[in-house]
Amino acid sequence: MTVAVVGCGVIGRSWIRVFTRAGLPVRVWDVAPDAVRQALEWHAAVAARDARGGTTPTGVTSLEEALGDVQWVQESGPERLPEKQALFARMDAAAGPDAVLASSTSTFDMTEIARGLPGASRCVVAHPVNPPHVVPAVEVLGGSSTSADVVSRACDFLASVGQTPVLLRRYVPGFLLNRMQAALVREAISLLDGGVADADAIDAVIRDGLGLRWALMGPFGVANTNADGGAREYFTRYGASFRWLMDDLGGTPTMDPALIERIGEGVDAIYPGVSHEALREWRDRMVERITQLKRQDHP
Amino acid sequence: MTVAVVGCGVIGRSWIRVFTRAGLPVRVWDVAPDAVRQALEWHAAVAARDARGGTTPTGVTSLEEALGDVQWVQESGPERLPEKQALFARMDAAAGPDAVLASSTSTFDMTEIARGLPGASRCVVAHPVNPPHVVPAVEVLGGSSTSADVVSRACDFLASVGQTPVLLRRYVPGFLLNRMQAALVREAISLLDGGVADADAIDAVIRDGLGLRWALMGPFGVANTNADGGAREYFTRYGASFRWLMDDLGGTPTMDPALIERIGEGVDAIYPGVSHEALREWRDRMVERITQLKRQDHP
Repeated sequence: MTVAVVGCGVIGRSWIRVFTRAGLPVRVWDVAPDAVRQALEWHAAVAARDARGGTTPTGVTSLEEALGDVQWVQESGPERLPEKQALFARMDAAAGPDAVLASSTSTFDMTEIARGLPGASRCVVAHPVNPPHVVPAVEVLGGSSTSADVVSRACDFLASVGQTPVLLRRYVPGFLLNRMQAALVREAISLLDGGVADADAIDAVIRDGLGLRWALMGPFGVANTNADGGAREYFTRYGASFRWLMDDLGGTPTMDPALIERIGEGVDAIYPGVSHEALREWRDRMVERITQLKRQDHP
Repeated sequence: MTVAVVGCGVIGRSWIRVFTRAGLPVRVWDVAPDAVRQALEWHAAVAARDARGGTTPTGVTSLEEALGDVQWVQESGPERLPEKQALFARMDAAAGPDAVLASSTSTFDMTEIARGLPGASRCVVAHPVNPPHVVPAVEVLGGSSTSADVVSRACDFLASVGQTPVLLRRYVPGFLLNRMQAALVREAISLLDGGVADADAIDAVIRDGLGLRWALMGPFGVANTNADGGAREYFTRYGASFRWLMDDLGGTPTMDPALIERIGEGVDAIYPGVSHEALREWRDRMVERITQLKRQDHP
C-alpha cells in the first residue's frame, strides 16, 4: 500500500506521520512547494522524537507524480467547495483505478465534492480530529455515489494504520464530532454568558469531572456505568429528568465581539502567562499518554 | 478538622475515602445501621488497595454523636426535598457552631433546603461527581442565606482534601455538570435516533476523539489551543459557523421505551459480554491513572 498526502498544512502534515509510522511509502504534494518543504521538516522533527520509527516521506513536485502508483490519497486542501471539487477532478484523473480518494473535509458532503466525477464511487470523507497523528478518531462517510465497498475499505485501511474509523450512515452538517462539540460549547458559553460561573469553573467541571470519563467512554458508555442495570435502567430512571433539563438548556449565543472578549479574558485567567503553543504541546503529549494507557488496559 | 459523613450509599461511602486518605478523623452515620456497616466494609477494601493509607473511619449510631465535634458535615441522603430539609434541620440542631453543613445534592437549591434554619448561613451545596474518591470535581454553591465566608471555606476545605472545587455564582437546575452532560447526551441521542450513526460510532467520536482533550481542558481551553491566536481568534473565525451549527442541533428526544431499548442494544454492541461492574471498575481505575498523569505533568 502506497499513500499520497495532498495538501500539507497542519492537518496534512500530521497525516504524513500517521502513514509513515505505519510503515507505508508516502508521497507528499501541495500546490505550494514551500508547504511541502515545511511539512517534511516538521515530519522529520516529530519522527525523530518517536521511538516507533517508520518510513521517510517523499516530496514530489506534481500531483500526477504523487498519485501515479498509490492506493490511498488523503486530501487536506482548503475548505472551499469549488477548490475541493477542482482538486478532486484532478485527483480522479491522475490516480490509478484502484486508488481510494479520501478528503479530510470537516464541512462538505462527498455527494457535492465528487458530483459528476467518473470516479465518484471511490471518493470518501475521512475527517480526522486535529492532529490525526495524536488523536485516533476519523469520521468516515460516503457520498450518494460512493460504493459500499470503498467505505468499508476506508474503515479497514484507517484501522490498519492505527486510527479509529467512525462510520456515519449519512451526511449531517458538522458530522458527529462538530455537532457534539457545538452542543457542549453552546451550553458552556450560555452558562458563562448568563453569569452562572466563570470560564475556569465551567472548564474545570469538564477537565476534572466529565471529561475524565469521556476520555474512556462516550455518553452511552458512561450512562451504562452509571446504574447497576446499565444504560436501559439509567435512561428509564432519569429519562424524565433528562428531558426536563434538556428543555431548560441555553440557546445559541450571540458570539458578538463583547462575548468573545469575555471568553478570551476567562481563558487568560485559567492559564496566566502560558503560551498557546506550550498548551497545545502539553495537550498533545498528554493525549498520547492517555491513548497509550488505553492500549495497555481496556475493558 | 474532624468530618461527619451523613448518609452512606454509593456517594457517601466514597466521601468517607476522600476524607480518610486526607488524614482526617471521620464519623459515619446513616439512618440505616446496615448501610454504615456496608460502607465501612467497602471503605476498608478500598483503603487496603490504596498506598496512600489514611485514617480509620468510625461508625456511630446517632446523628448527634456523629456531629458533636466536627467542622465539616457531608450529607448524601436521598434526593427528596422534604427529607433533605428535615435532615438539615436535625443536622443544624446537632452540629457545633463552627461546623459547615454541606449537601451532595445534584438537584436542589440550598435556598430551599436550608429555608428557615437558624444556621442557614453555614449550609452549602458540595455536589461531587460519582464517585468523589475517583473524580476530583465538586460543584460548590450557596443558597440565598449562605455566607460568602462559608462558600470560601468550603472551596478551601475541598481543595485541601485533594478535590477540585468548582464555584457557581448562582443556582441553575442541573448546576454546570448535569447541564453540560445533558447537552452532549441530547445531541448523541438525537444522532442515534435520526439514524446518522450507531451508538458505538457516536461514543467513539468522544472516547477516541473529543474526550481525550476534555480530560485535560474544558471547551474554552480546547478552543484556546485550536487556533494560533487562542480562543479569541478561534471564536472570531468560527463564530458564524458555530452559530449555524448550534441552530441545527437536535432537540430533546422522546426518551420513550423503544428509544431507550435502541440505546440499550447499541451499548450492548459496544461491550459484548462485559459486565457493568467490570466496566465501572475499569473506568474508575483509568480515571485515577489519568488524574495521576495530570498531577505529574501540567501546563
